[in-house]
Amino acid sequence: MVNNQEVASVLQKVRQANPLVHNITNVVVTNFTANGLLALGASPVMAYAKEEVADMAKIAGALVLNIGTLNPTEVEAMIIAGKEANEAGVPVIFDPVGAGATPYRTETARNIAGAVQVSVIRGNAAEIANTIGEAWAIKGVDAGEGSGDVVSLAKNAAKRLKTVVAITGKEDVVTDGNTTYIIRNGHPILTKVTGTGCLLTSVIGAFAAVERDVLKAAAAALVSYGVAAEMAAKKAGEQGPGSFQIAFLDALSRVGADEIHQYGRIEQGE
Amino acid sequence: MVNNQEVASVLQKVRQANPLVHNITNVVVTNFTANGLLALGASPVMAYAKEEVADMAKIAGALVLNIGTLNPTEVEAMIIAGKEANEAGVPVIFDPVGAGATPYRTETARNIAGAVQVSVIRGNAAEIANTIGEAWAIKGVDAGEGSGDVVSLAKNAAKRLKTVVAITGKEDVVTDGNTTYIIRNGHPILTKVTGTGCLLTSVIGAFAAVERDVLKAAAAALVSYGVAAEMAAKKAGEQGPGSFQIAFLDALSRVGADEIHQYGRIEQGE
Amino acid sequence: MVNNQEVASVLQKVRQANPLVHNITNVVVTNFTANGLLALGASPVMAYAKEEVADMAKIAGALVLNIGTLNPTEVEAMIIAGKEANEAGVPVIFDPVGAGATPYRTETARNIAGAVQVSVIRGNAAEIANTIGEAWAIKGVDAGEGSGDVVSLAKNAAKRLKTVVAITGKEDVVTDGNTTYIIRNGHPILTKVTGTGCLLTSVIGAFAAVERDVLKAAAAALVSYGVAAEMAAKKAGEQGPGSFQIAFLDALSRVGADEIHQYGRIEQGE
Repeated sequence: MVNNQEVASVLQKVRQANPLVHNITNVVVTNFTANGLLALGASPVMAYAKEEVADMAKIAGALVLNIGTLNPTEVEAMIIAGKEANEAGVPVIFDPVGAGATPYRTETARNIAGAVQVSVIRGNAAEIANTIGEAWAIKGVDAGEGSGDVVSLAKNAAKRLKTVVAITGKEDVVTDGNTTYIIRNGHPILTKVTGTGCLLTSVIGAFAAVERDVLKAAAAALVSYGVAAEMAAKKAGEQGPGSFQIAFLDALSRVGADEIHQYGRIEQGE
Repeated sequence: MVNNQEVASVLQKVRQANPLVHNITNVVVTNFTANGLLALGASPVMAYAKEEVADMAKIAGALVLNIGTLNPTEVEAMIIAGKEANEAGVPVIFDPVGAGATPYRTETARNIAGAVQVSVIRGNAAEIANTIGEAWAIKGVDAGEGSGDVVSLAKNAAKRLKTVVAITGKEDVVTDGNTTYIIRNGHPILTKVTGTGCLLTSVIGAFAAVERDVLKAAAAALVSYGVAAEMAAKKAGEQGPGSFQIAFLDALSRVGADEIHQYGRIEQGE
Repeated sequence: MVNNQEVASVLQKVRQANPLVHNITNVVVTNFTANGLLALGASPVMAYAKEEVADMAKIAGALVLNIGTLNPTEVEAMIIAGKEANEAGVPVIFDPVGAGATPYRTETARNIAGAVQVSVIRGNAAEIANTIGEAWAIKGVDAGEGSGDVVSLAKNAAKRLKTVVAITGKEDVVTDGNTTYIIRNGHPILTKVTGTGCLLTSVIGAFAAVERDVLKAAAAALVSYGVAAEMAAKKAGEQGPGSFQIAFLDALSRVGADEIHQYGRIEQGE
């Protein structure tokens, strides 16, 4: 069972190993993603050209695919990189940003999930549902139904895609289809800073690079990230989302075993 | 007549409606634009692929086109999205960044303004002049002639393009060719942070999404934005442009009726 | 000989001339690069389309080429812009980001260095070595051998490429192959913020735009940048990399003759 002890231990491994995380991500969040990974103690690299993604993916500790501002050229590169990562045993983390918002996104999310063996997929409930072809209204960014449904959705998706699924929202749910964890960390102001979901997906990559039990890696990433957000919200949340964003980067560099033990809220679900 | 009361009322509507603003914008400012819109209370989405821009534009509250780092593929997507927005009655806001700086930009600005019915065009005097084919030296980013000329230029452009024109600089001028407002808010340190003009254009989009009198929407956006900048400059301007940028995001989340009534400076021009 | 007096004098010229720096750079660092140049007192422009790069490069004070997220279209634009800059006598500054990490990057770095006459090339030891075809392990981002080797490498590269070479690391080395300077400014937290190397390359561009002795320009840029980093680290380094990044932008706008004289550490090497 993953508890705060285990979370702190995987976080510590990230800081020691400084894993290379290869991101093929959207233009809105590249800078924030790189700075967040650096703050945490990982080593980010962004490389998009199909001429080099296979070479980069195979030497990385994890590959992160994010379709936030997708286009056909980058999607092609994502699939090349993903297949090479599969070949080399490098875990692939997938963020189907906006699946359901347009037919092109939905179709692309399904194509990538079909062509590449993904280790973890992270999104909100609507994105995960649309990726596996279940109807789920996507209004704005959040889904917002009861958490019971979200757990079922997560388990279904995990079984269908043979992967670990992390659905984030008010509560986070992470499951491999059999074992499920519920995480109650984080802060609402995260929704006022662009790219906090995307960065979380990349942070899961950093954890999966050092911990081959990907369910544990994903759970540990969600707790660590949520606790860092609470630290930042306490320090700067009242000033507004600009100050919070900066305090959050600081907190990612400072969150450690003490804070995890004090604030981490993870429990096993049904 | 648009006064501070009206400005505060439209700002309030933005916060309540949380409008989806679809941006096709440049790579320098995507993150800042998304964070600024989120701070203000709008819901930003960036989508660029011609495979999906029509689907996204038609469900948005406003579409923002910005040619800051243009290329032929994105320009094609802008025109597809713009035409679909026109069809769907979604207001289109256009920022002809750098028109006049290179022939390619000037020509592209004119092509977009010709192919799409724009609701509001925002730029500095040189950009607006070059978009309508008037000679106006563009040196660096600012134009800096007397405001009398700027008012005439704005009116000419409004009549020529059948749109609301916002020319920003020391004083902001906004006109539909008949009714004109002069706004004296803002702060010089805005010119030391990249993308403050681009974000303003997207903020006009958020206001136009909730107020169909686009002249009023644009005027209200200019006042709200300028007042937020003054709040941030007072708080952090002396520390430098880094601190100002963060304080400005905070201020966009906090500016409300009280500050508008106290600091808003809008008057009707001739 | 370049001393603190000379450094302060070139920095002063940048502030007075407000030079236009044309950047063709990677998507991770565009916003930070633009804000850093603005804070310093330069005027950044990003333009990437092959339809306009020649027109922009020839009116700029310097052209900066950075292959951080390269693709064939942008590399083509870089070479078009570089050749036009050569024609027009505009200095070209080159940052071979990640040369050695993938064959595509290494090959592209060599192609650009071959096709364009570069005034200054800046990178870490591994990037510079790989650009001139010398073996040098690139693990993560840093090279980390003794500084004696780095000086030899820098001189070799300067002679081979007939350019000024700046190798940054714990100590910075800058040389034209004959005269060499060692600069001992900066702070380790710079490695925790993405794009600090890329921004430095663009800052060298701003200095080269106002000082035609490019060795002096590059040395002055390195000292000014390092001193600003020390100012920021003193103010905010303990809070973490988020706060440091903001304080660094502030410091770039404040660093002046007083701080250069007090903290600048430049000496002539062998």
